[in-house]
Order: sequence, then C-alpha cells, then structure tokens
Amino acid sequence: MTKHDIPGIVIGRLPLYLRAIQRMAQEGQRVTSSQELGERLGVSAAQIRKDLSQFGEFGKQGTGYNIKYLSAQLRRILNLDGVWDMAIVGAGDVGSALAHYQGFRDRGFQATMIFDKDSGKIGTKIGALAVQDIANMTEIIRQANIKVAMVATPADHAQEVTDQLVEAGVKAILNYAPIQITVPDDVRVEYIDPATHLQKMSYYLE
Amino acid sequence: MTKHDIPGIVIGRLPLYLRAIQRMAQEGQRVTSSQELGERLGVSAAQIRKDLSQFGEFGKQGTGYNIKYLSAQLRRILNLDGVWDMAIVGAGDVGSALAHYQGFRDRGFQATMIFDKDSGKIGTKIGALAVQDIANMTEIIRQANIKVAMVATPADHAQEVTDQLVEAGVKAILNYAPIQITVPDDVRVEYIDPATHLQKMSYYLE
Repeated sequence: MTKHDIPGIVIGRLPLYLRAIQRMAQEGQRVTSSQELGERLGVSAAQIRKDLSQFGEFGKQGTGYNIKYLSAQLRRILNLDGVWDMAIVGAGDVGSALAHYQGFRDRGFQATMIFDKDSGKIGTKIGALAVQDIANMTEIIRQANIKVAMVATPADHAQEVTDQLVEAGVKAILNYAPIQITVPDDVRVEYIDPATHLQKMSYYLE
Repeated sequence: MTKHDIPGIVIGRLPLYLRAIQRMAQEGQRVTSSQELGERLGVSAAQIRKDLSQFGEFGKQGTGYNIKYLSAQLRRILNLDGVWDMAIVGAGDVGSALAHYQGFRDRGFQATMIFDKDSGKIGTKIGALAVQDIANMTEIIRQANIKVAMVATPADHAQEVTDQLVEAGVKAILNYAPIQITVPDDVRVEYIDPATHLQKMSYYLE
C-alpha cells in the first residue's frame, strides 16, 4: 500500500485528531476513547475508529487510546517527527502575521525565511527574519532544501511566485492569495481564504 | 424548500465559483462555461452545473454563463448584496492582520470593531479601529446588531469568548484559535488553522 491509497479526506482528519488529543494531553488527560474524541470534534466514534484503523491498531477494545502513544503515532504518520522549515513569500500584513505566528513550532513547522519584491521592505526585520529579495528566492530555497512554503502575495502574483517555488523544489504550498493556483502533480496546495469561509456562513444569515 | 435542504458541501463551493468568476470579470471576461470554470477550480463541469441548478437556471445550453449575471445571482444567494459588519476578538498578530486585511470589503464583509482584554492594547488604534475592552463586548455587539465575528484569541479563551458572542446575538463565527468550539444549532462556525493544512500536506512529503 502506498501513501496515495488512503483517501485525502481521511488524511485531512488526522491533524484534527492530533490537535484534539494534544489539547487533552495539555489538560493532563492520559487516555481517551473514540466516543470522547468524536464528541469533541463532531465526528462519529465509528468514523474515528475506521480512519485510525487504516494505519494500524492504536487502542484496545474497552480501554481506549493512550494519548501519548496515539499522539506519537499520528505525528509519525503525518511526518511530524522533526520540524519542517518554511519559506514565506510576501511581507505584507498576512506574511508578517505568519512570520510572527507562534503556533507553528509545536506542530511541526517553523518559518525560516521571508521574501518580498518591495525594496523598502528588503533587509528589514519581521520578528527574527530579515526580508530577502524575491529575485534570489529560487536559489536560496533550493540551496536550503526547503520543501514547504506559504504564499502571501496579492492574487496577481500568486501563480508566478508558485511557479518559482515549484522550480526551487517546494512540494507543499499553503496559499493565502485569494486565487486558485496550478501546480504539477507531485506538489500539494492548500488554501486559506477567510472571505470564502465567511461567504459560506452568510448564506445562512437572515 | 428551505436553506437547510441544500447540502453544506454545495454551499461551500459557491464562494469558490464566485471568486473565480469575479476574477474572470476583473480580467475583462464576459462569458464563461461550466467547462472553463471547472478547469480553473479542479472541479468537474457536471458538478458545477448540478450545484448551480439547485438555485435556478443561470446559463443557456451552448452559450454558457453571463459572468455579470451569474456573479449577481451568487451574491444574492450567499446574502452578499450588502456588506456585513464584523467584530474581531483578540488584537494580537492574527487579529491585527485581520483588521488590516483589505480583501474583505469587496467580498461582502468589513471589520468594524476589535476587542481585547489587555489594558495595554485597549484604546490603541489598529488601522482605522480603536481596540475596545472585551468587558464591554457583549453589550456593544448586541447594540450594533453585529451577526459575524472572528475569534483570534489564544485557544484557552476561545470558548469563553464564543459563549459571549453567542449571547450577544452573533450567528457566524470564523475561529482562528486552534481549538474546536461549541455553539448552539443556530450559530455557524468555520475554522482557519494553518498548521492543520500544513500537517495534511506533510503526510505526503518524503
């Protein structure tokens, strides 16, 4: 069985399971059940058991899941045993907020470089990171062997920047620009666009 | 037929259709087809036709969709004829970035207030918004009849803040705190958590 035999929708739920049990661990809890986890997440217990069973046997009937063990296993499955270095493209408000964001490190990622094309920003510091010239981005990313990037440019530049990231060897892109981007089959893209989420909810407003 | 008869997954795709055709309009395009739209979005043409057919007849066989008309209809369906005022809770890096973000207005939303509990932040300005004391939040939101809010507090405070927003009459919450929150049935929650998206992609990294 290869990684691609497991449906993407199952993989997409694993980070939510991990987040929930890490929260339980922070609260001092040691054991959980698919029932409890399901109630926290609004997913059925059967769904959780079925998802996890694709990767092995993580709990015993009647005694539930050991949180520390399940957490370690989920991190291993999701390739989170180490910390992935990330590049941020775009040093505007969104890129700056991402550079400052403290929530990545504990979850397996850290921003180690940020690029912009604005000469007024190049060389300035955002948190611990100095803004670098986007003209040098492809080479710098390739040399650093960075595989993960976040695109926080205006929509007009997102595809061009993405093409450069792909050329540099990036395989996972989190795109904050409000536009669909195209990548080769061996590169993954996820999208964050708050207005899309808001519009989905406004449908239900009176 | 009520709003709730149409599956949430269909509603979730409408903002993506709207975003794509608004982009086409910006590029000067006047007409599109379900084929073209599908290629842009990585969705099948049949899916798009089926989704749109739930709401009426928006195109003619062979001539495609008039972009201006379809855009107006999607905005109407999604309740985006006006602009929804929003409250931001939390004036840290994420809340500040949201207060500065220019991408909401054109898409039907505007942040009109921001709250924090930190006395060092209360009264300071973030863009055009003065940070207000969270102690007064429920009353201020209720009086302003705000229905949409974004939660950008640490995880530990997200549920408490959510309860206050619900009490104040908010019906749509975009939660940036990395924790599942609980709301009554008549309130919608959407989540934005970049680490969850990154972890979904790291599964596929070598």
